[in-house]
Amino acid sequence: MTDFDATRALFHLPEGVIYLDGNSLGPLPRAATARMQRAMQDEWGEMLITGWNRAGWMAQPRALGDRIGRLIGAAPGSVVLGDTLSVKVYQALAAALALRPDRRVILSDSGNFPSDLYMAEGLIRALDRGHELRVVAPEEVAEAITDEVAVTLLTEVDYRTGRLHDMAGLTARAHAAGALTIWDLAHSAGALPVDVAGAGADFAVGCTYKYLNGGPGAPAFIHVAPRHADAAFPALSGWLGHDAPFAFEQAYRPGAGIERMRVGTPPVLAMAALEAALDIWDGVDMGALRARSIALSEMFIAGVEAACPMLTLASPRDPARRGSQVSFRFGHGYAAMQALIARGVIGDFRAPDIMRFGFTPLYLRESDVQAAIRTVAQVMQENLWDDPAHHRRHAVT
Amino acid sequence: MTDFDATRALFHLPEGVIYLDGNSLGPLPRAATARMQRAMQDEWGEMLITGWNRAGWMAQPRALGDRIGRLIGAAPGSVVLGDTLSVKVYQALAAALALRPDRRVILSDSGNFPSDLYMAEGLIRALDRGHELRVVAPEEVAEAITDEVAVTLLTEVDYRTGRLHDMAGLTARAHAAGALTIWDLAHSAGALPVDVAGAGADFAVGCTYKYLNGGPGAPAFIHVAPRHADAAFPALSGWLGHDAPFAFEQAYRPGAGIERMRVGTPPVLAMAALEAALDIWDGVDMGALRARSIALSEMFIAGVEAACPMLTLASPRDPARRGSQVSFRFGHGYAAMQALIARGVIGDFRAPDIMRFGFTPLYLRESDVQAAIRTVAQVMQENLWDDPAHHRRHAVT
Repeated sequence: MTDFDATRALFHLPEGVIYLDGNSLGPLPRAATARMQRAMQDEWGEMLITGWNRAGWMAQPRALGDRIGRLIGAAPGSVVLGDTLSVKVYQALAAALALRPDRRVILSDSGNFPSDLYMAEGLIRALDRGHELRVVAPEEVAEAITDEVAVTLLTEVDYRTGRLHDMAGLTARAHAAGALTIWDLAHSAGALPVDVAGAGADFAVGCTYKYLNGGPGAPAFIHVAPRHADAAFPALSGWLGHDAPFAFEQAYRPGAGIERMRVGTPPVLAMAALEAALDIWDGVDMGALRARSIALSEMFIAGVEAACPMLTLASPRDPARRGSQVSFRFGHGYAAMQALIARGVIGDFRAPDIMRFGFTPLYLRESDVQAAIRTVAQVMQENLWDDPAHHRRHAVT
Repeated sequence: MTDFDATRALFHLPEGVIYLDGNSLGPLPRAATARMQRAMQDEWGEMLITGWNRAGWMAQPRALGDRIGRLIGAAPGSVVLGDTLSVKVYQALAAALALRPDRRVILSDSGNFPSDLYMAEGLIRALDRGHELRVVAPEEVAEAITDEVAVTLLTEVDYRTGRLHDMAGLTARAHAAGALTIWDLAHSAGALPVDVAGAGADFAVGCTYKYLNGGPGAPAFIHVAPRHADAAFPALSGWLGHDAPFAFEQAYRPGAGIERMRVGTPPVLAMAALEAALDIWDGVDMGALRARSIALSEMFIAGVEAACPMLTLASPRDPARRGSQVSFRFGHGYAAMQALIARGVIGDFRAPDIMRFGFTPLYLRESDVQAAIRTVAQVMQENLWDDPAHHRRHAVT
């Protein structure tokens, strides 16, 4: 059983802050600073170019990928790190379309993170072969999976509402229609148990700076189901995805399996911070994490609803249909969130009216949730969101 | 006038090492460790999500881009950081091809870094519209620029031989033929004065972990000439290249100018190290750097040629036609380089027979070059490269 008091002690959490935004950027693992020092001084500083082998830099995208693989139910050797999530979406989509050359529809939903839709748009325009990005409401996805669909591009957990898609059910439905699936796990990896292999997912992508706590701008990951890995066309065919990068051949030959999803030089320093973050995850039981995530979220919903009738729950009420965040709609949500942040309760705001709160059992306690409820109640009951000092523009991701 | 003893003192250089591989991975700027500590603890640790604004993370890709812009002769506001060089090549190529829809030839040369060719291959295969990657010998490029050519994709300095292309001349020739130009500055930025605006280059890309000393896996950069920036089609249309990323609109609208070449979340930690590296560059006179680079290189060539008749100069003899590296051909080059590294002179090897030595005036002195010559002479004269202990496989980038 995971000891969540022990995991909490492994993070640096600023004084006076209750951090409900780990779904956007996870906090600093205490060990990451020393790990980064080592990467800077003992590896880069002392080993210089020989660090690629001696410090294992070149092997890290696969080694760390396997550790993420455990959290998302992916087989060893089927996950690799690198680039940003948007770039990984592009790779997965280009590979999926190449595997379904006779079909023209990419199916997504209006709850998807915009960048996924934008990357699809860019790919469609580049390909210029009549592909269509079909965007339906999240609850209409199942019906919309027809035999026109080449691939579904869905984010399992809606970044605004926390609504959780049925990955296994939709994947089965897609396969029955002859379509492939890409699952964006940005708000799933480290948030709840994921089983890409069990669900039969074809591709999965995700980022590591949210629930995984890898640091701002930490690299993304991609998973390709082993049955596709040697057939997947790498549109971004960079040298580190070549079968023999250091032979410096003039023509591209894709590497075996997931290797071909590597593109350029790995982000060594960023991976050092991520490695320290994954050390914490290695000991975590995902079932226990999920139970605690639900308990904290339910406590928050009950407390806020009791105290703040002007807030409307935007997340599914059934915890089985939610990720690890809770969102409320409120017309003055932006200003209200600024007032909360000024009082040390950090959540975030998503246009037009969503106040988001992330629940991350690795470092959040019941007492934090109770204190957050009290602060939300105070801000709302006293109209503190109407303080003009909070009406300045503020961008968060 | 730049004081190169002063710049040398700003780097950590391991004891007993003469580092002639800064053309592959630059050494650690002493200030980078503290800067990274600050990014980890004061920014990520304390500011958490608010670091995107308060610590300026979101603005950094442009701010650091402008500082690189000075080194490559690019106008302020025309350079942005992010991703890897391979990804930036893809973006530039996709944009260039979209600007020349009636043409089908991408012209490159056999001295280009393989990843540039691979990315072109991948794009061509994805587009599937009959584009051709035409690869000629470096000295045949000028003649090969015909009115079939949509874009030239050339690396200014050959990664193996150090041969320097005539950027201004070839760009003029390309423009006369109605073609666009993409210049890969991987071995140029920080190696010699570059003037992309003066040359009229259309696109330029480069990396920051070589001569710029940004650290292993530091982000790449892309420059788009201002005259193209608002017309350039962003194939990798990620949310941070959107005109209003935080409006979370469903459809992509490209940002103004160079903004649209941003893709995903910026690599904040990697940018912290790079920032410390660029602090050093801010004071450097590129003319003085070039003069010293040539003096060190000429000294090395003369010394090695005098002592080692078995080594054949692979770089142009005329310093005006060379970047900031010197390469020699030698049949047992791999083993010989291993022997040199074992003796503290770090260069590298490129198949099939190239021994590479980079000359980086920021931290290399005449006395280092003299000592390197003596070690090369010793290794070659005593056949030390024939020591079987050095015949292990070793990969470097």
